[in-house]
Amino acid sequence: MKSGLSFLIAALRREIDELDQLARTSALVATIGRLIHALQRERGLSNVFLASAGQRFADQRTEQATACLHAEEAVRACFDRLEADAGSIGNGARLFSRIAWVLPGLDALPALRRRIGAGELTAAEATAAFVKLVSGLLAVVFEAADGATDPEISRLLVAMFNFMQGKEFAGQERACGAAAFASGRNDADRQQQWLHLIESQERCFQVFVEFAGDGMAGLWQGSQPAAQRAEQERLRRIACAAPAGVALDPELSAAWFDCCSRRIDAMQSIEERLAADLRLICERRIAQARAELEAHEALLSRLPADAGTPSAAFFDEPPMEETPPRTAGAAAPFGRQLERSILEMVQDQSHRLQAMSEELDTVRAALNERKLVERAKGLLMAHRGLSEEEAHKMLRRTAMSQGRRLVEVAESVLAMAEYLPGEPRR
Amino acid sequence: MKSGLSFLIAALRREIDELDQLARTSALVATIGRLIHALQRERGLSNVFLASAGQRFADQRTEQATACLHAEEAVRACFDRLEADAGSIGNGARLFSRIAWVLPGLDALPALRRRIGAGELTAAEATAAFVKLVSGLLAVVFEAADGATDPEISRLLVAMFNFMQGKEFAGQERACGAAAFASGRNDADRQQQWLHLIESQERCFQVFVEFAGDGMAGLWQGSQPAAQRAEQERLRRIACAAPAGVALDPELSAAWFDCCSRRIDAMQSIEERLAADLRLICERRIAQARAELEAHEALLSRLPADAGTPSAAFFDEPPMEETPPRTAGAAAPFGRQLERSILEMVQDQSHRLQAMSEELDTVRAALNERKLVERAKGLLMAHRGLSEEEAHKMLRRTAMSQGRRLVEVAESVLAMAEYLPGEPRR
Repeated sequence: MKSGLSFLIAALRREIDELDQLARTSALVATIGRLIHALQRERGLSNVFLASAGQRFADQRTEQATACLHAEEAVRACFDRLEADAGSIGNGARLFSRIAWVLPGLDALPALRRRIGAGELTAAEATAAFVKLVSGLLAVVFEAADGATDPEISRLLVAMFNFMQGKEFAGQERACGAAAFASGRNDADRQQQWLHLIESQERCFQVFVEFAGDGMAGLWQGSQPAAQRAEQERLRRIACAAPAGVALDPELSAAWFDCCSRRIDAMQSIEERLAADLRLICERRIAQARAELEAHEALLSRLPADAGTPSAAFFDEPPMEETPPRTAGAAAPFGRQLERSILEMVQDQSHRLQAMSEELDTVRAALNERKLVERAKGLLMAHRGLSEEEAHKMLRRTAMSQGRRLVEVAESVLAMAEYLPGEPRR
Repeated sequence: MKSGLSFLIAALRREIDELDQLARTSALVATIGRLIHALQRERGLSNVFLASAGQRFADQRTEQATACLHAEEAVRACFDRLEADAGSIGNGARLFSRIAWVLPGLDALPALRRRIGAGELTAAEATAAFVKLVSGLLAVVFEAADGATDPEISRLLVAMFNFMQGKEFAGQERACGAAAFASGRNDADRQQQWLHLIESQERCFQVFVEFAGDGMAGLWQGSQPAAQRAEQERLRRIACAAPAGVALDPELSAAWFDCCSRRIDAMQSIEERLAADLRLICERRIAQARAELEAHEALLSRLPADAGTPSAAFFDEPPMEETPPRTAGAAAPFGRQLERSILEMVQDQSHRLQAMSEELDTVRAALNERKLVERAKGLLMAHRGLSEEEAHKMLRRTAMSQGRRLVEVAESVLAMAEYLPGEPRR
């Protein structure tokens, strides 16, 4: 029969296991961030390569594919390590299932590159393929954030996920704008999509600032020089504020691409800082928990094996008088003082875990927005037989035409679930 | 480098681990239910024993203590088994911390019994001690329900927790009424507390009916014969509807106790049925997941080790033409048909886990009510230096005097957090 103190120790051990696991998932998130960055660059280069009928960026595209390959290997190695440690992952089933979903995408990259090299795809098709892959990788990051059990780490992972998602919207904006300038004109649909990408990334960076803490938020502001921001806003205005159909100067395509790329590269350095902070926090939390564990184990070693938890203080409400030890011999060597201190330790830990779980709920609420959108998509897919892409487009179109946020439209869809046509097909 | 299919299998393995663990926690919940039932009976007997100055129920109390001891041993054995398997418990840290909190209470039971036997405690003090112990055991059940990762099992655990909590309110009502009748009069405070216990148990049983499914709800209705309900309502009316201070017939104490006990014993048989259902569902879900795992492993064994996930279909949006296998030899033996079926399997599993996680959120929302109350208590404890009991009484008093539900008062307290006096002390 184990004592209360043994379970206190078991609780701390579990906490350390969970923190170790979080350190591994945090490392995975950083590694995925680097692969996404490389893929975003390859997407941009491929885009210009295809739009210029193979005239531009041919060499850079090949170099970038090599960079991607290295980043991909690092991610795959992280995946494999994670699988070897599968036992201690909280939401392992969902995390692994996301990984299973995205791996065929990585496997299919060589074929995609060959087809781009042979000019068999349009710029839009190539972009869509990269977007799909990056979104699969971001889904892995999302699960990692959603499975975190420590509020401080979870907070940084939520910041990181939103930053990465915002960066991806910035990357899509780069592609969208590059295609618009390169083609020499803009149209109303693309203008709408463009504005939507600007709005989406701003929302992501807002959440990031909210969760990353003041130091990181300051770093983020400082990483965007005013001159660069002004140049980007000028190019945005030229393309988006002009009436649809107006001619655009194709020479601006390169200026736009460079301007966006500088901004996105700066984002990458913020992401690396976030990753380093994550690593530090994981290490600090693990060290804290280990120190506490050692203190508890030292206390446990002072108790004889059959002592049970000293407990006369448990029912002290209503107050009990000083009583002799309950069982002859067993608890005798321990004064009321030691009994009380163990009981207080148990209660302190309960309160600490309680407080952690409260803060965790608060942090996780920030992930709910994405969950609502996913849920609304799933509903549309089931009731209307749409593909995921079609469902997303439908939600986005409604949001754009009604001037509402995507999550608001998703909420409306979920609220009207029973009015949707047809039987769910899944 | 592992393929997508390997991670699909890893996801299923994790799911099976989680289900195995859920089967163990479900067994723990059932075992705790039996101990709580035995303690509730001992509390009732001790109450009458003390109120009658040792004249009544002396033998039954001793017998009941033995029954409690057996139930306690079973619970401790479950705790120990759980600790041995600590690795795969999702919210292990919190679950173990709850166990650590309650074990000193079990350790202190012999001393409590001795003091009751010696008549050193009032009936109210003895009741309070048992209430504290039962509430600690229910907190373990709550964590078990909150940590469940399968919506179907989680649903039944939520039903079970609410049923057990409702039964505990019924047990407290029995003690409250027995003390009132035995003392020969009722007063306004006790009447208020009594009505509050009636209302609290009814709310718990509502949640139970909502989550347990129609069959179980029918069983619950059927377990309460109309004649017995009528008798209980008559006794409730005599004590609570009369003006405060009116004399009560002490002879009714035994009738009240028997009537309540019959009802509570009937509840125990419902609880056993719930426990049996839980066991069945766990077994069925584990069998399902194992069958799926075998199918996946059979498929994996058909792939050569270096094949990777067949993946040409991944980027089929935009549609790709039939392409030759990407890497010479590797994927060659597999037709597009097999590639597609694996990709669909991955996507099906993603959707299934997604749907499960949605339903899980819905089920867990039902646990939030309790979390809000705990949180409001914590706030009051920190800001006003109250004990947990005092904080709970304060919330309950406000709820009673304002005719609002406890959770509504808790929400108000949380919403006004910044207006609370004093600095948080923790």
